[in-house]
Amino acid sequence: MKLLTVDTIDEARQKLLNCVTHGNTRRWISAELIETRFALGRVLATDVNSPEDVPNFRRSSVDGYAVISADTVGAGEALPVLLRLAGTVEMGKPAGVVLGRGECAYVPTGGMIPEGADSMVMVEHTEPFDGEIAIYQSAADGSYVVRVGEDVGRGEILLPRGRRIGSGEMGALASVGITEIPVYIPPSISIISSGDELISPPAIPGPGEIRDVNTPALVALATESGFRVVDVQSAKDDEKALEDAVRLAMTSDVIVLSGGSSQGAKDMTERVFANLATPGVFTHGVAVKPGKPTILGYDEKTDTLLVGLPGHPVSALVVFRILLSWLTKQLTGQKASPSFPARIACNIAGAPGRTGYQPVVLVPDGDGYIAEPVFGKSGMISTLTKSDGYVVIDMNKEGLEKGEAVQVFSWEP
Amino acid sequence: MKLLTVDTIDEARQKLLNCVTHGNTRRWISAELIETRFALGRVLATDVNSPEDVPNFRRSSVDGYAVISADTVGAGEALPVLLRLAGTVEMGKPAGVVLGRGECAYVPTGGMIPEGADSMVMVEHTEPFDGEIAIYQSAADGSYVVRVGEDVGRGEILLPRGRRIGSGEMGALASVGITEIPVYIPPSISIISSGDELISPPAIPGPGEIRDVNTPALVALATESGFRVVDVQSAKDDEKALEDAVRLAMTSDVIVLSGGSSQGAKDMTERVFANLATPGVFTHGVAVKPGKPTILGYDEKTDTLLVGLPGHPVSALVVFRILLSWLTKQLTGQKASPSFPARIACNIAGAPGRTGYQPVVLVPDGDGYIAEPVFGKSGMISTLTKSDGYVVIDMNKEGLEKGEAVQVFSWEP
Repeated sequence: MKLLTVDTIDEARQKLLNCVTHGNTRRWISAELIETRFALGRVLATDVNSPEDVPNFRRSSVDGYAVISADTVGAGEALPVLLRLAGTVEMGKPAGVVLGRGECAYVPTGGMIPEGADSMVMVEHTEPFDGEIAIYQSAADGSYVVRVGEDVGRGEILLPRGRRIGSGEMGALASVGITEIPVYIPPSISIISSGDELISPPAIPGPGEIRDVNTPALVALATESGFRVVDVQSAKDDEKALEDAVRLAMTSDVIVLSGGSSQGAKDMTERVFANLATPGVFTHGVAVKPGKPTILGYDEKTDTLLVGLPGHPVSALVVFRILLSWLTKQLTGQKASPSFPARIACNIAGAPGRTGYQPVVLVPDGDGYIAEPVFGKSGMISTLTKSDGYVVIDMNKEGLEKGEAVQVFSWEP
Repeated sequence: MKLLTVDTIDEARQKLLNCVTHGNTRRWISAELIETRFALGRVLATDVNSPEDVPNFRRSSVDGYAVISADTVGAGEALPVLLRLAGTVEMGKPAGVVLGRGECAYVPTGGMIPEGADSMVMVEHTEPFDGEIAIYQSAADGSYVVRVGEDVGRGEILLPRGRRIGSGEMGALASVGITEIPVYIPPSISIISSGDELISPPAIPGPGEIRDVNTPALVALATESGFRVVDVQSAKDDEKALEDAVRLAMTSDVIVLSGGSSQGAKDMTERVFANLATPGVFTHGVAVKPGKPTILGYDEKTDTLLVGLPGHPVSALVVFRILLSWLTKQLTGQKASPSFPARIACNIAGAPGRTGYQPVVLVPDGDGYIAEPVFGKSGMISTLTKSDGYVVIDMNKEGLEKGEAVQVFSWEP
């Protein structure tokens, strides 16, 4: 019975992980050292520890006067304390003065707090008075002082493995002078589409022919998911032609074959993978809707993952996302993108025994969102372009009930 | 009184929009035609209408038999209807047969429905029987048939202006054979940091010195926000040096000056902008926390926007995001990224009269999230790297109360 060999998503994911982490070359999780300034969007391959304290001197967070807090006890609007001005600290320079009791020093925002001082009083609460400084507020010990290492301590984890480098991370790395970082090398991917009905975009489709939608959509999704697209081919639905195309692509880490949607196309994909790869096909279908006709295989010798996707564009994109985009995030320690809590707008039937994916639009509603389903046969690309994301329907549930709490996942990987 | 000249965010945003949409060259909203395959991540500059129907023939969404539904009335598991097999449709080919009453034709998923037929019966509900086909299910008119133009109709808006091109959009454009699209040209930006205390990453900071954090962080954020970074300079806190740096950068659409945080640095930025630009500075501060010392100006002659950001990295990044990332999205018709509904974990004080931005971590909680504030003085980069995003505290509110519903905005622009 074919049906018995269908994997749940969790089973398929576990098998994929096993292949890749027990592969010969482990190239899916290899790293390279690159200059930080070129690292925007890359993913850290190790924790990065801070080599120094930030700040590495006691810094003022306001414009004002460094004081010894004990000297300001009782100061107020009506009764200021008078302190002797012992010096003025310049930005970027050593403080150049040590405070004694009864003294203060001017320090600009970001400037160095002089030795002896323990806190700052904002300039708004002071006034020059007869050669001295009148302090109109009592200072708590440590106020407006950024301590040595308060931002980041020496040896502390500054950024964890799996962190995607964005603007905050760039700032953090610069703050401790890290100019090179280890990042994961994006796995390479080949994308092959097959189907006698497919023509390439500039050509005009005749009766029965359709344009190849999956190739450009999958190239985009693979790129967004952190893969390096190294090869794009199209083949006719002919076993020999398909085998040649797959063999040619077996230098890449993953081959994605987006075949026809018919049972015949699925069987051909299975045979081609079985002929070329050892141990070969390990998943003959995944219990998802849309997307059941998914084939997964592995070739030990070349350490290549083989993925046969459904031919329908929406199914192909959903399955790529839940298996391959998931796999790269998992292997590189990336956090899953947060989902959006919402309430579903109407009843939706599930497919018992299969995990369902329903495209939805997020409609703001009070403090939250309503998730409105976008219905459409799975071949229809407009369900993708009109929706913001999708909700998952558990394989053990009959469906979703109107008003039920759901999580909406963005289409962006 | 200086305080009277501080703008609210809405006022500052409106003034920015006015400058850019009334500028001489309108280069912020100019477009270029590019090949679709190079358009990943770009933003559509016009609506794109479909030049044709998708599909452009009646397509089957299953493997099965095309039938005339009237012929199948009353068919069931116990009592099949027998139909004559009039032909077999091949993928990518014209149907090549016209059905008459009592006839059916085999059609694979994606194949063309023959003339005369009005619906499909899945192969699972059929059986070859003595040269004819036994149909075990009655078909509703139109079932499993994708009508001409059902996915996308000719002349319909396929994708709206402002849509960012991702995988679904790539698929949609390919489906109707659009190989070139008009996209917005990213505005150019120059980033200048000034401060006597700043040193560049490879150098080791001496007492009172700190590394330049803002430049790499702003380069990253500008890039992620869709700007083209064309110039990066650093200058000492000296009016002449700063003026030279800004003058040199006035060929770009925006100049961002991230100055020192002290009052002196803010005043110098104002003078430099006033000296170089006509009409000059139009916003002398923005009522936000962190980020008040923000200066906005405009030079008519060169059509350049001048932005003086606070020196503290977190403030600089927040202000860049709420003003400049917002501005590009606004001008190009992009939807704001959806926020995450959450409940705030504890009371947070606001700053009456100023809009507050509080970094938070999203912690899953039941069907939703708790937003846990990450506290830290605004100079601290670790508040950025440890948080998932931020909540906004209304300028007319005293703060947020524990358990209150909030929206969390991602740091990603």
